[in-house]
Amino acid sequence: MQGEAPGLTESQAFDGLVGLEITEVSPERVSAQIAVRDELLQTFGVLHGGVYATVAESLASRGTVAAVWSEGSVGLGLSNHTSFLRPVSAGTVTAVGRPLHRGRTTWVWDIEMTDSEGRRCAVSRVTIAVRPRSEPHPR
Amino acid sequence: MQGEAPGLTESQAFDGLVGLEITEVSPERVSAQIAVRDELLQTFGVLHGGVYATVAESLASRGTVAAVWSEGSVGLGLSNHTSFLRPVSAGTVTAVGRPLHRGRTTWVWDIEMTDSEGRRCAVSRVTIAVRPRSEPHPR
Amino acid sequence: MQGEAPGLTESQAFDGLVGLEITEVSPERVSAQIAVRDELLQTFGVLHGGVYATVAESLASRGTVAAVWSEGSVGLGLSNHTSFLRPVSAGTVTAVGRPLHRGRTTWVWDIEMTDSEGRRCAVSRVTIAVRPRSEPHPR
Amino acid sequence: MQGEAPGLTESQAFDGLVGLEITEVSPERVSAQIAVRDELLQTFGVLHGGVYATVAESLASRGTVAAVWSEGSVGLGLSNHTSFLRPVSAGTVTAVGRPLHRGRTTWVWDIEMTDSEGRRCAVSRVTIAVRPRSEPHPR
Repeated sequence: MQGEAPGLTESQAFDGLVGLEITEVSPERVSAQIAVRDELLQTFGVLHGGVYATVAESLASRGTVAAVWSEGSVGLGLSNHTSFLRPVSAGTVTAVGRPLHRGRTTWVWDIEMTDSEGRRCAVSRVTIAVRPRSEPHPR
Repeated sequence: MQGEAPGLTESQAFDGLVGLEITEVSPERVSAQIAVRDELLQTFGVLHGGVYATVAESLASRGTVAAVWSEGSVGLGLSNHTSFLRPVSAGTVTAVGRPLHRGRTTWVWDIEMTDSEGRRCAVSRVTIAVRPRSEPHPR
Repeated sequence: MQGEAPGLTESQAFDGLVGLEITEVSPERVSAQIAVRDELLQTFGVLHGGVYATVAESLASRGTVAAVWSEGSVGLGLSNHTSFLRPVSAGTVTAVGRPLHRGRTTWVWDIEMTDSEGRRCAVSRVTIAVRPRSEPHPR
Repeated sequence: MQGEAPGLTESQAFDGLVGLEITEVSPERVSAQIAVRDELLQTFGVLHGGVYATVAESLASRGTVAAVWSEGSVGLGLSNHTSFLRPVSAGTVTAVGRPLHRGRTTWVWDIEMTDSEGRRCAVSRVTIAVRPRSEPHPR
């Protein structure tokens, strides 16, 4: 997306606020890490469910864009279904994703997230719509 | 939850980081508002999908806890399925939720989010597990 | 869809096999009934989860097609998320659905199902893709 | 489950009506096949979305029961989220599933379905609640 970057840098946008560190983006595989800190917890002291959903959404979106941008398209989230498997209250969460479907109009991703001990803590199924950059909205 | 409050205040936790302003919490109805700002956008300039999921998760969790806390239980998110209907890039998003199911072990919530013009921009279905406070984890 | 009907009649297709009786189809509202019988149960004696998903899928698809067929389009299911709230083992299940979003490329429906006593037993969120009839596949 | 079988045989129940042939059931892996026939299609001539959901639901439920029955528990579907990736109109659909989470109160399964040429045609995420057999309902 170089040279054609959208208006906000990652650090200015939501990924920056939550502290998402993306470590790999390709149409075949995406990964990221996030360090757990108080600001990411819910009041009961475990990582907020919205953080997992955020990580998955960012990765699926970027992996899709990595493939379709050069064809004049962009990826926009259609739905995000995240299941919470195990509470995390400290350490680092690692996310890895792969596309289950790479269609002309939609991509479907699986994202798995693990805690510092490698235990699965959340899984997301994210559907991304592929739209022309010239007319991304409305859906 | 007064007097038995968990360790973090809302402003210290993720709700505070995203700027969620909760306006109503009861077992029958929950609502909140969030002001859109650059830090909540994804790089393409529209509200990040993770923000909608966060709003829904917080509301469903609080609505459940409002009912079950006095019985010695707590609510923990099991899954969050958010559909993105219309991109939002400015203004205020308002969320309103109602429980579809209030079971002994799970609650299911519908949360609808609208933009400043009252147009539906996202909908979430959130399932919350009800667990004894003495032994909330593991699932 | 008269005069342009697809190859199979409803009674020859899956709706016929499960015994779905559609009672209303419009772009604003869809409804149906299904009589519970042994063949629709799982072995533990309660209505099989696949039956609820089937009812919701049929209704959302038909409601979308009712609107888009005359514009040369067809509706194809993208995803079906059904939550099971209360087991049913006898009587009649009634389903009612309404569109939450009617976009150019996707429609999102909520379908609620109730038992003979009017208690909510399942809810579905179904996303239908709108595609040109001339080229409905591949996605 | 031998010797303690529930009231209906598989052939009398919904699995029999749809023609599901289960080929493997264990707590680590489940699989099945289904031969596509007109009665399983929707009127546009492609496999009905409810059939995929049914296959996934049956497999996830059986895989869970295979583990928890001997401990006096049973598995009951909480939610089924099926994404439709590629239309199928003939041949055999093969489903394979694995548990992503095996908790004390919920199991989460991933089920992937492929067509006769091995192409992924649908994926399901199914959550099963584990309940005491003596008191499986209400939830």
